[in-house]
Amino acid sequence: MTLKGKKVLVTGGAGFLGSHLSDALLKEGAHVRILDIFSSGRHDNVGSFGRNLELVQGDLADKNLVAGALQNIGVVIHTAFPMEIRMPNPPLARVKSAAAGFLNLLECCIKEKALFVEISSIAVYGDEKYLPVDEKHPMEPETVYGVVKLAEEEFCRVMRKTQGLKTIILRVADIYGPRNTRVSVPIKFLHNACLGKANTVHGTGTQGRTFTYVSDFVKGVLCAVTSDKAEGEVFNIAGARFISMLELAETVKEVTVSHLPITFDREKVTDSRKLEIDISKAREIIKFNPEVDLAQGLRLTYEWILKNMSYWK
Amino acid sequence: MTLKGKKVLVTGGAGFLGSHLSDALLKEGAHVRILDIFSSGRHDNVGSFGRNLELVQGDLADKNLVAGALQNIGVVIHTAFPMEIRMPNPPLARVKSAAAGFLNLLECCIKEKALFVEISSIAVYGDEKYLPVDEKHPMEPETVYGVVKLAEEEFCRVMRKTQGLKTIILRVADIYGPRNTRVSVPIKFLHNACLGKANTVHGTGTQGRTFTYVSDFVKGVLCAVTSDKAEGEVFNIAGARFISMLELAETVKEVTVSHLPITFDREKVTDSRKLEIDISKAREIIKFNPEVDLAQGLRLTYEWILKNMSYWK
Repeated sequence: MTLKGKKVLVTGGAGFLGSHLSDALLKEGAHVRILDIFSSGRHDNVGSFGRNLELVQGDLADKNLVAGALQNIGVVIHTAFPMEIRMPNPPLARVKSAAAGFLNLLECCIKEKALFVEISSIAVYGDEKYLPVDEKHPMEPETVYGVVKLAEEEFCRVMRKTQGLKTIILRVADIYGPRNTRVSVPIKFLHNACLGKANTVHGTGTQGRTFTYVSDFVKGVLCAVTSDKAEGEVFNIAGARFISMLELAETVKEVTVSHLPITFDREKVTDSRKLEIDISKAREIIKFNPEVDLAQGLRLTYEWILKNMSYWK
Repeated sequence: MTLKGKKVLVTGGAGFLGSHLSDALLKEGAHVRILDIFSSGRHDNVGSFGRNLELVQGDLADKNLVAGALQNIGVVIHTAFPMEIRMPNPPLARVKSAAAGFLNLLECCIKEKALFVEISSIAVYGDEKYLPVDEKHPMEPETVYGVVKLAEEEFCRVMRKTQGLKTIILRVADIYGPRNTRVSVPIKFLHNACLGKANTVHGTGTQGRTFTYVSDFVKGVLCAVTSDKAEGEVFNIAGARFISMLELAETVKEVTVSHLPITFDREKVTDSRKLEIDISKAREIIKFNPEVDLAQGLRLTYEWILKNMSYWK
């Protein structure tokens, strides 16, 4: 599928992931319609609305709004996700409304025969049973966030089998970059550097993540949507390699030209996971090839933070 | 835990499973509070309300109602489940309200420190990957019903880990018996016999289920609730053995003293599963021992149907 002239709805299109994705889709010649409630999404994340970039502002839990937003849409990319559900012990009222919103989207996608791209998460896997984590890894989420994503995936799978929903599931890893509103570790480290604060690594810093620069995430989504082999499949989308917290801290120090030493908190290791994500399947089938290395990604993010220190205020 | 004097909330307590369970709990000396919206539940399923049997009528999706219903409750047994979600392609609006209701219950259980007994289903397993199906069988539901139950289980598991919810998960097999409103195969066969209609077996009738008489289901729940080894565990609850559709038809013929031959529809096999459910874990840990054999269960159900032919009108 080519994106040129294609009508794409991006839920959460004014948020971190959704806004980068919308930018890229516009560049590919797609008509983008953003559906956002602006809870964590921001108007300054998106360009001017016009013929190729439309806005539907409101709540996914409002079925009429969703039905209207889906009109003439060929592809839905569902990046919207309430920030609160990513937190520990999230308010269940938010889970309810997110569930309602998700089901509204599925229902309308089936009706409109639109392709539904579920932006899921490696949170569905829970703790690592083996490494690297591929798509066959058991799914035992450890957080409400992971459970919600697992449930969404299962709805997609069953609705595909029983009602002909066209769907692609993308399990994305830890994404960082400009417009990151959630204070992830790369953002926190860079932000500390800006403030002249030393960064602290827990334990020996061997734990870590497959940090993914946001443009590589966008690339993964575009590879999936334009491939003719992706529908009905599940792919991990992540950066090229595993990065330990120590390496992250060291690279931040290098990129920010900081003279502050990295400090260690040997006692405090709340999360010892080494989430190395296997992206062989996406490399092979949809030709996804992440290309932004850690130093480069951190540098681009750092430049942006320096110019946008007020972003989290 | 003894049930004597215990305050138990039975959601769906006026329905098929819930009403049998409430009867048994009352016999054990528990105080039973039924929460039911009477969509498929019926007033003639339950006894007179009074000091030991209370009624809260309304929708689980109403959070204030649920909070009120949970007051002073020690155990919640969640049998309520909208009949429509058991059907193929259920209306997603029902899924939304069921999800909201379920989350209301969990939230209130955590707050009240009540034990939450989730009546799940073998539908979470989907098609058999191996037989007999034990609790470690992969969970790949094939229906919306199965997905909803899987999501509910996952919420229980994660809320237990993160918020201290006390919970027992029971995956129940195909249950039949008096007050069965869903027209399951045993009920359909018995009903046909009452009407003097022949029963048809698809294929050669080797496919089948681990049919479970409702009193054995009740026994399973009581074993779990009264055991001190059940909290945090998942158990299959099913009858003693696998029963093929042919055996079912033959036993119905015997029990109903029918002279009509069983007919075969060799072509029509829409479901060839042989869902033999392994209950070893429940036998061992909570000493669950189903005791109603097929002929006996069918006989009891038949007697009830004969007296209640108007039940499905």
